Amino acid sequence: MSAEFALIERYFAQLGNGYPAVVLGIGDDAAVVQPPDGQELTMSTDTLLAGVHFPHAAPPELLAWRALQVNLSDLAAMGAEPLAFTLALSLPAIDDQWLRPFAAGLAACAKNSGIPLVGGDTTSGSLAITITVLGSVPRGQALTRAGARAGDGIYVDGTLGDGAAALHLLTQGSLQDSPALQQRFYQPEVNLPLGVALRSLAHAAIDVSDGLLADLGHVLSASSVGAELQLTALPVSEASRAAASNLAQSQLWSLTGGDDYRLCFTMPPEHEQQLSEQGYELNRIGTVSTEPGIRLYEGAVEKPLPERTGYEHFGHQ
Amino acid sequence: MSAEFALIERYFAQLGNGYPAVVLGIGDDAAVVQPPDGQELTMSTDTLLAGVHFPHAAPPELLAWRALQVNLSDLAAMGAEPLAFTLALSLPAIDDQWLRPFAAGLAACAKNSGIPLVGGDTTSGSLAITITVLGSVPRGQALTRAGARAGDGIYVDGTLGDGAAALHLLTQGSLQDSPALQQRFYQPEVNLPLGVALRSLAHAAIDVSDGLLADLGHVLSASSVGAELQLTALPVSEASRAAASNLAQSQLWSLTGGDDYRLCFTMPPEHEQQLSEQGYELNRIGTVSTEPGIRLYEGAVEKPLPERTGYEHFGHQ
Repeated sequence: MSAEFALIERYFAQLGNGYPAVVLGIGDDAAVVQPPDGQELTMSTDTLLAGVHFPHAAPPELLAWRALQVNLSDLAAMGAEPLAFTLALSLPAIDDQWLRPFAAGLAACAKNSGIPLVGGDTTSGSLAITITVLGSVPRGQALTRAGARAGDGIYVDGTLGDGAAALHLLTQGSLQDSPALQQRFYQPEVNLPLGVALRSLAHAAIDVSDGLLADLGHVLSASSVGAELQLTALPVSEASRAAASNLAQSQLWSLTGGDDYRLCFTMPPEHEQQLSEQGYELNRIGTVSTEPGIRLYEGAVEKPLPERTGYEHFGHQ
Repeated sequence: MSAEFALIERYFAQLGNGYPAVVLGIGDDAAVVQPPDGQELTMSTDTLLAGVHFPHAAPPELLAWRALQVNLSDLAAMGAEPLAFTLALSLPAIDDQWLRPFAAGLAACAKNSGIPLVGGDTTSGSLAITITVLGSVPRGQALTRAGARAGDGIYVDGTLGDGAAALHLLTQGSLQDSPALQQRFYQPEVNLPLGVALRSLAHAAIDVSDGLLADLGHVLSASSVGAELQLTALPVSEASRAAASNLAQSQLWSLTGGDDYRLCFTMPPEHEQQLSEQGYELNRIGTVSTEPGIRLYEGAVEKPLPERTGYEHFGHQ
């Protein structure tokens, strides 16, 4: 409709400007994008709903970051480079006070990763943000969940459990008191260059969105292998420790909490040095084994796995 | 989350099977798709919300058709061929009685146009369907809204106003009494082969989603031209005539009603014969002129334009 059309044009049209790959941006029936020669495309979509994935009063600028970063995280886990994205935005009202900072946050986040916005749809409804990202990867080089081999080290590229810690503070209404966790929740880092570097080094990769045990479990199932994890090797942030009542809670968050958007990957340990020398943060948390399932150790002592390996959104019933 | 993952797998995973372009379908962080060599990509997204774009009680099988067809309509208007699509589905509950026919309808519609489903996200919220379609078109051959030239004929590929007529019956609770209009509302035809044929013949194209005057207006603005339309040349269906209280209402629907998803395009009239011989339905409704704006004629008599050229969704406030 005309009002929607004008809305998109006004707030978002410039987010596709200045990219040579964008042959035709927002404003026609569809965008036209030039993919790099000889590449395959990666495509993924994620929705964030108010009251489910974030509070209704979430700061729009930060929310925009989160909506795009969680999608870029899927591209990173494939070893893909960003090509273009679309935005489907449902809003209770056309509110300049909300749209202006949302568009500014989206522009900053998109620029940060060099991905143009090429299309969108705005509808009148409860607040919902669906982003679809398109990436590219050289033919046959996409990183998948299958391929992990016994003997591979299991790595994550940063601390785990911050998403769950932030959620804990959010439900208590005190997230704003922890700038570190607020940033981790709304502006999770996504290491696209690491994903690219891993194409030729890692055997399998996934992004930790639903919790380490759940997501690593997908890798292990797809690869028909198992894993041994070292509890004390799980990287936990100071902010998460401060938010938790004790170490055990931080560790539980790092095992089962969602919304971390870290890369988790398996590779032969001999590649560690190469990546470290390139400046990438690597935390080895365990080893791939032939025996199916995940076993958790503290030193040589096997520890029980948490009963709930899954994930709870903000507002999840 | 695991429940969502299992949900998508169960109902939708097979919708990506059997397509050579799908290197990796649903089930990883992102899908991997092989685009045809030497082509540009077209990308578009559209959301349908319950209570806004369709009634909450809409038949799920038909709704799935509608959600995909309105997106394919954007590809047709670019002259693109379908490559892949993603589905973001928000649902009040995981309801097998709803999901089974929805998935069946989506499978049938996707198969009908030969487009694989390669990714998705399901969330718990009010019913909303966002589809993002990816298409391909030979480099530089995408049909845009710009390019219409004075002297071009203005064409549509079928009747206009059926969407508005269906909406009229829908708000009266009697859409089911008109199978023809019910089909036009939920299963609008999308002529992808005509879009492809128009690449080398048409100067500009758009799909009629917001109403002829509004959408043709976009073409004329983008092309810096105007148009003269012949009121009696507007193709109106028998079903629309039957639903309308008089001819004037049918004509108003055909000028301003949304949800028709017809192709509207401009091209030199000498191409008419070629397209007709290929079996495409062509209805010439007017002529592109140098003078900006749209002028409406009945024979030689100029008629006033309707005051409202825009579009009203079902449930629009």
